[in-house]
Amino acid sequence: MPSRLVNELSPFHVMEVLEKAKELESRGIDVIHFEIGEPDTPTNIQICEAAIDSIRAGNTRYSESMGIPILKNAIAEEYKKSYGVEISERRVGITMGSSPAIFLTLLSIIEPGDEVIVIEPHYPCYPQLIRISGGIPVSCRVYEEDEYQIDIDRLRKKISNRTRGIIVNSPSNPTGTIMEPDILKSITELGIYVISDEIYHGLEYGKKAHSILEYTDNAFVLNGFSKLYSMTGWRLGYCILPEEFIRPVQKLQQNLFISPNPFVQMAGVEAIKKVRHQVPDLVDLYNSRRLIMLEGLREMGFDLKTVPNGAFYVFLDISPLGRKSYDLAFDILEKVHLAVTPGIDFGVDMDGYMRLTYTNPEEVIREGLGRLAKYLELQTD
Amino acid sequence: MPSRLVNELSPFHVMEVLEKAKELESRGIDVIHFEIGEPDTPTNIQICEAAIDSIRAGNTRYSESMGIPILKNAIAEEYKKSYGVEISERRVGITMGSSPAIFLTLLSIIEPGDEVIVIEPHYPCYPQLIRISGGIPVSCRVYEEDEYQIDIDRLRKKISNRTRGIIVNSPSNPTGTIMEPDILKSITELGIYVISDEIYHGLEYGKKAHSILEYTDNAFVLNGFSKLYSMTGWRLGYCILPEEFIRPVQKLQQNLFISPNPFVQMAGVEAIKKVRHQVPDLVDLYNSRRLIMLEGLREMGFDLKTVPNGAFYVFLDISPLGRKSYDLAFDILEKVHLAVTPGIDFGVDMDGYMRLTYTNPEEVIREGLGRLAKYLELQTD
Repeated sequence: MPSRLVNELSPFHVMEVLEKAKELESRGIDVIHFEIGEPDTPTNIQICEAAIDSIRAGNTRYSESMGIPILKNAIAEEYKKSYGVEISERRVGITMGSSPAIFLTLLSIIEPGDEVIVIEPHYPCYPQLIRISGGIPVSCRVYEEDEYQIDIDRLRKKISNRTRGIIVNSPSNPTGTIMEPDILKSITELGIYVISDEIYHGLEYGKKAHSILEYTDNAFVLNGFSKLYSMTGWRLGYCILPEEFIRPVQKLQQNLFISPNPFVQMAGVEAIKKVRHQVPDLVDLYNSRRLIMLEGLREMGFDLKTVPNGAFYVFLDISPLGRKSYDLAFDILEKVHLAVTPGIDFGVDMDGYMRLTYTNPEEVIREGLGRLAKYLELQTD
Repeated sequence: MPSRLVNELSPFHVMEVLEKAKELESRGIDVIHFEIGEPDTPTNIQICEAAIDSIRAGNTRYSESMGIPILKNAIAEEYKKSYGVEISERRVGITMGSSPAIFLTLLSIIEPGDEVIVIEPHYPCYPQLIRISGGIPVSCRVYEEDEYQIDIDRLRKKISNRTRGIIVNSPSNPTGTIMEPDILKSITELGIYVISDEIYHGLEYGKKAHSILEYTDNAFVLNGFSKLYSMTGWRLGYCILPEEFIRPVQKLQQNLFISPNPFVQMAGVEAIKKVRHQVPDLVDLYNSRRLIMLEGLREMGFDLKTVPNGAFYVFLDISPLGRKSYDLAFDILEKVHLAVTPGIDFGVDMDGYMRLTYTNPEEVIREGLGRLAKYLELQTD
């Protein structure tokens, strides 16, 4: 029999939405996808060619366990350029996607039964990764009325003598919120480890995201290449560690993964060194899509109390529709062939929301919005 | 402060040998490497080109969490062809190297405090992965005098009411032993989960390795492309699961890794479908190297009570030299510039052994053996 741990892992409800969507598509029905958290643009050809050159050069054997020095150095340089922070490349660890980076970090700080705070709504995997690491996730809510900013007093009340750390994510999945710098700074002063998931850094619209490293060296940064460089399938992420965690995380990495893929790492070097300057164009593209989606939702009568400033999501209050998010997502999919992510994936209290992704061409976004409007009309009929 | 778990993980002593070897090399000294468990041949160009085609075709996004169907199917077919077993492709899960496959398997069966038996000498990571999964490794020795075969009565005595499973590895790292089929069969009758690490399957010299699936469907198979196809850096492995573990392992995979790299998976398809037939040539090559190494060791006076029939290792009794394996490895490296793996990496009782890898061209093996002979002469002077 499978262990309690795995039996108790929650499913991703969005996966069931996706499965249903694929079933509809297999019957010839065209479905609009607002549910997937993945860029629609292909990986830049220059990045691809760098990997290809590396494969052809025979760069196909084990690499250094914590990653190749040239990539670690490029990441340290990138953080210096973007945030003015000086970090030794020794503190960078390359991982196979940013999920393993989160997991290695959690494993390296958690004793069985320790608590780690997550900000709800949150990326679905955080609480599960905390549980797999032997810890207990403790949720701290943020509210649309507060523009999804963390209330430090509320957060402070969540800290117990078992609290080991907190995971923050700015820009946030699913809200798209960029955290205020003074709040981020306050979090570094609470006496617990801060794990800062900076995977959506760079995808910012008018407001700047700050790195946790601007305020402390004693924090964990998680980041990766999936979102900014459309490299989801490549599985390339990294962590930046406090000095005393370099060796522990290296030991975990050696045991769990041996070392990351060398030619995928070379693609990462190319991304930072040669493609980074093109990111502003991507940001402009996403921003225009964001504005179209926000405008469309407002026209439909949705009351947006705050607007997302980063990532590529809109987290939408659907409580006026009076249905739970999972049922609603299936109903929308079945009636108007639009796939969305049910809010319940982002926290137990998030059943009054759904997440819409705008990584689609403009005309697809407009078509999807049209379908949502049609669904709303069906409800009032 | 890092968690107890990571602080207590043992280091790999061979990594320190390797580091010292690299330091010598940086000073212009040529070092012979008998310590690394990695094929010396490059990845077949056809496999590389399949990955390149896949990258160029834009196959760079998330794949199915448990892997692409075409690869899962190819693996199921391969097991049918090699071992006559019928397995549904649903039971195959693709992972980023075989280490994550071991870990996902352990996580899916272990409750905190459960015991898992490892056969000593063993792959260094097994006990550590068991600990990271919340379990307790229990060692069961095998002896050179028994040709490193498992004594079922001795094994039975290691089983307690907390025993959840056993990890077996045939052909074995570090001994190169292929387990007798009746012993493998007996292990499936002990009432505990059998995790069969079949990563060295195919690298067999005159004796056939059997898959655990020939005896039961209620076992876990771990395997990968690193060894047989010289794809260590690609990080491509897989597990074959009992039916009731498919969904639990999938949930773990989604949380920890999202999905494996799609174009690396396409390289795996090419390996099985187009390159598998070339493996016998590789086996012949390794076999001739094996014979050279065995002959050389015998000429030096080493008393080999058993010969390795698989993988690419010789596990050598160095107790007559009267030194512990770690000190001896450094002494050999410093005096004759030959790097070997200290036995202590393979179990606490293995300090009287060292592991030699023969994944080197013939002339390099001969040169390395010459250096070892020279070292032995220095000792008797």
